[in-house]
This record gives sequence, C-alpha cells and structure tokens, in this order.
Amino acid sequence: MSPTPNPTIIFVSNPQGVPVPGEDLVYRQDITIDIDNEPLNGGILTKTVALGIDIWVRHRMGYEYKPNTPILGYGIGVVLRSENPKFQVGDHVQAPSYREPFAHYAVLSEATASARVLKNDVGLPWTAYLGVLGLAGETAWVGYKAYAEAKNGETIYVSTGAGTVGSVVCQVAKAEGLRVIASAGSDSKVEFLKEIGVDVAFNYKKQDVGTVLKENGGVDIYWDNVGGKALETVMGCMNKYGRIVICGIASEWNVPPTERHGNKSLVLALAKNLTINGFIITDALAKFGDFNFESEVTRLVEEGKMKVRTETSDKLEDAMKMLVDILLGVNEGKGVIMFS
Amino acid sequence: MSPTPNPTIIFVSNPQGVPVPGEDLVYRQDITIDIDNEPLNGGILTKTVALGIDIWVRHRMGYEYKPNTPILGYGIGVVLRSENPKFQVGDHVQAPSYREPFAHYAVLSEATASARVLKNDVGLPWTAYLGVLGLAGETAWVGYKAYAEAKNGETIYVSTGAGTVGSVVCQVAKAEGLRVIASAGSDSKVEFLKEIGVDVAFNYKKQDVGTVLKENGGVDIYWDNVGGKALETVMGCMNKYGRIVICGIASEWNVPPTERHGNKSLVLALAKNLTINGFIITDALAKFGDFNFESEVTRLVEEGKMKVRTETSDKLEDAMKMLVDILLGVNEGKGVIMFS
Repeated sequence: MSPTPNPTIIFVSNPQGVPVPGEDLVYRQDITIDIDNEPLNGGILTKTVALGIDIWVRHRMGYEYKPNTPILGYGIGVVLRSENPKFQVGDHVQAPSYREPFAHYAVLSEATASARVLKNDVGLPWTAYLGVLGLAGETAWVGYKAYAEAKNGETIYVSTGAGTVGSVVCQVAKAEGLRVIASAGSDSKVEFLKEIGVDVAFNYKKQDVGTVLKENGGVDIYWDNVGGKALETVMGCMNKYGRIVICGIASEWNVPPTERHGNKSLVLALAKNLTINGFIITDALAKFGDFNFESEVTRLVEEGKMKVRTETSDKLEDAMKMLVDILLGVNEGKGVIMFS
Repeated sequence: MSPTPNPTIIFVSNPQGVPVPGEDLVYRQDITIDIDNEPLNGGILTKTVALGIDIWVRHRMGYEYKPNTPILGYGIGVVLRSENPKFQVGDHVQAPSYREPFAHYAVLSEATASARVLKNDVGLPWTAYLGVLGLAGETAWVGYKAYAEAKNGETIYVSTGAGTVGSVVCQVAKAEGLRVIASAGSDSKVEFLKEIGVDVAFNYKKQDVGTVLKENGGVDIYWDNVGGKALETVMGCMNKYGRIVICGIASEWNVPPTERHGNKSLVLALAKNLTINGFIITDALAKFGDFNFESEVTRLVEEGKMKVRTETSDKLEDAMKMLVDILLGVNEGKGVIMFS
C-alpha cells in the first residue's frame, strides 16, 4: 500500500514563554506512514482515536522532547497491527503517559509493554479515559486518597476547581462529606463548580481568596493546583492540623526557579501543625498504589457523580491553540482532539 | 515568719531584637514572699530547684508575658506547702511548660492540676528533666516518632545538631540505624556531635550546607531547627520521597513575618514527592501521644546512649545573659540555672 498521510505536531524548540504555533510547535501535513509495512519491532501500530491536551506537555518541552520529533502526550488509539500477543487488532489501547505521539497514526514499540487495553465494558465516551479516568482523574483520586486525610465535616479548598483534576477532587470530597470551597477564573467555570455541588464557588479574579476562606471559617485541606502567592495566602487561612496537597503550579509554570514567588509563611507549618505533601502521580502510584482508581471512578461516572468539562475539536492542528489556551487559563474545559 | 527574699526576673517590655538585661528583663532582689502564709488557693508553694533557659521564652515575650510580671519558663521545684493531695511536701514537681516563674519561690495554683511529680527513681541529675527528659527531649522524641518515618539506612540531616532537641534527634536516629549528618555553629559543638556518634558533623559557618549534603548523597529526612534560607537550601538536597520536619526557626526568631526569607523551592515538594510537617510539641502530643517518651528516653539516658550538653549557673540573674547567648547562638549547651 502506498504511504498514507500522517499529519503530526512536531516540537521545534523550547520557548521562553507560551509556545507559538507555527514556530515552537509546527503542524506537519507532509509526513506519511506505510501502514502495512512500517516495522513494529515487537510493538503495535495504532490509529489515533483521541488525544488529551495537558499542561504537562508544556513542562516536557523543557526536558523531554527532542527538536523535530513529535510532541508526546496522553491519548487512545485503536490497534491496526500487532506483534505483541497482549494486543489484538481492534483493541483500544492507551500508551503510558506522555508516550503517545500527536499524530494520526503511531507505532508504539518500547512503550507497548506497559500500555493498557481499555475494556470500557460500560461504554463510556472515550474522552473519559483522557480526563476523569485518565491521568488527571488518577492524579486527583490517588493524591486525595494518599494525602488529604479527610474527615467528614472538614472544609477543603480546591484551586483551579473547574479543571479536570480540581473537579474530580471537588466531587470526591463532596462524596466523602466534606464542605467544598473551590475557585476558578471565569464565571462560567464558577457555574460549573456549582453544578457539581461545590458549596462555595467563586471567581478568584473577582473575589480575594484570603477573604473568602476566612469568611468561611478557614480550611482544613488545601488542594493546591497553582502554587506561588496563592499558596502563601492559603497557608494563612489553614486551620490547625491542616493538610496541603501540592499537585500543580499553574501560576508558575513559566517562571524560572529564581523568579518564583518566595513563600514567607513556612513558619505557619510549625505554628499550625500543618502537613504539606507534594506529588507527581507516577511517584504517588509507585508508593501507594492506585486505591482502586479505575473501578471506583468508573462507578462514580456511571452513577453520574463525577462530571468534568470537555472541549473537543476534530482537527489535530487545534491542539496547539488549545495548549496555549490552557497555559493562559482561558480554556473552558479539558481539551481533547477527537479523530474521525 | 517574716517575709523571705524572693529574687525574680521580671518581664518589662517586648524588645525589637535581643532583649537587653536590665531594660527589657530586670532581676529584682526586692521582691519577697511569706512562705508560711502566702495563700495557695488549692495549689502548692515550691522552692525552685532548677530552671531551663529556652528559646521559646523569647517568643513568649511577644504574646504571653504581661509587663511587670515574672518571666515564665520550664523548671523544677520542691514542694514546701501543698493544698492539693496530689502533691506532698518534699515532692519534686514540674509545672506545665512555661508556667514556672523565674524566681526562687513560686506558688502554682491554676497550674497545679497538670503539674507532674518527678519520681526520678533512677536518680538522674535534675537537669535531665529540663533537657533530654524535658520539653526539648520530648519535642525531639515525639516529633521524630510522629513525622520522620525513618527507615533503616536512610540519611537524616539535623540543623543545630548540638542543641538539646538536635542532639536527641541525632542519637535517636543513630540508634535506629540511620546515617546522621548534623551541623552546628562552633568547632566545639562539632566535636560534641562527633562524640555522640554523628557520622558527618560540620560547622555551617565554615562549610556550605548544600555542598556537604550533596557530597554525602542527599538527604532523606531533614530535621529543621532553623527555617529560612537553610530550609530552602536543604530542599534542593532532598532525595525523592523525603520528609522535612519543621521544628524550629532559629534563623528567624526575631524577623517580622514580612521580612522572612521567601522560600522559592516549594515546587520541589511536588517534583520530589516531599512531605513537610511542622509541629509544636503540645499539638503533636495532643494528636499522637508521647510514644512512651519518659520510659524510653530514661532508659536511653541510663544506658549512656543519650547525652546532651549543659551549661549551668547557680545565679538566677545569669538567666538573662544565658537567654541572650541562646538567641545569638553563642551558648555552648543547654542553659540551666541550678538553685542551691
């Protein structure tokens, strides 16, 4: 068979700030693949079904991607050819995180061993496996179970509560009987927070975080997705024996280490007997396991108790702009590219 | 009986910096007490045996002591009169922390209920009950047991390792099979660290903390007695899954909150999966209990496995200078006033 077009998003160079589509990242339509004959080396060849747009793509530009190779992310593909008996033609497969090329077709060779077949017996939309049942959902679930030490009746504050991680944390906390305060950066996101049951939802661009938290009696658990100045502010609002879970640094993803906000409130950890845990999901999984993530969260999704917002496009080239939107905080939901 | 002289150290005012003896603190010889007739209101009257000089006396100047009342600290007295059946004449008694007046005689009324009688069946020097078996030792023991999550073979770094808290932590860690790195601010303190079995002892004024820690393969546990810039530096030297126990802020005891060092390394908590716990002993005790502190540490002291340095004076007025020395870091051991 003649070569098939395999449009791909190529990483050119690590930008100083927000990547510029067409410069730092390039959508290349001239790339092709020979579907029938491409060597698999014991791996599999997949046709991409969906790709998730995650903030970590930006971080990985700094240390992982090589110039003029595809961006690697988190996605789902359907198997067209397999040299590994674990995978059958037609299986839906998810590569390990950040091993899925942003392309229409992909050969997974080294990555194959730890790829997983998505059974999806209950027929959830595939987008679920990139959000609530993907890395973001797993991050929220495992991090919460491992570090929040939540007790019924306590108050949790979740920053970037309308993001996938944040909204899963909000809903898990709600299900466990906590009072949930969450913030987001647009009124429509605040509306979504109310829809998923958040008790106190507010737009941090319109209301002062410290004031809202103090008016609501302080915070027992802070799920920190932003870092920086906000983390310092919230430390001033923590109740005694509070727990802080550092999960993300949305406010400082593009700030060099020497320019980051200097937190002057660490002494409060002593005065208030605080516990601060930072984690990246792979490390937390290695230490704690997954707390039955897939089965538990699948059930919650089926029961309608776990919702996230998704923005989709059917054009791979939109991935570049969608990434920029996430970095600027102007996306309205989890970005997903759906392939027809 | 005629009034007996009861020399006392009186708190005058909260200084900006290091308290000035004779101004912020005053040694008053003109105070007297009527030992036979002083009303006890259900409490006890004690003759002071020993008083400990603790850095927290300085902190309490800012929020606890009232002007023209005695400094309150941590001490031991022998009962001369008692209206509480829990205490017999001749008992050695320890008031709850920071309830013991810096005076030759004291009436403990409200404080009596939670005062404890020191049995001291094994005949340890009374100074032990102000150091290794006192609040400092308890802080080290309980904090270590509650938060270090130490595993055999790991490396701990203890700042101000030659202080009472630090040296107890060093020796507990050593007894549990850890590799111990500890620093102090004078060569004689470094010698003491070597005497108590510290594997890598260094003078932080002569050697760079970050360099020493990196040369020694990084740190799994950091026992932080100093806070500030040092804490930031050590965060850069932590190994994955490391634990930081924030126990003191020796570097910033006199710095207003807005002037404290801004820690730019909190993102490392995420990258390295760190756990940071701050605590004050009373809060930790309330949450975790005491891990058999008294019996376990008494045994270690008896076995010669737990040593601390002590500097004593038999003059109450020296307490002022000894406190200043601690605040300036020029003391050579735990300060104790012994009464004849």
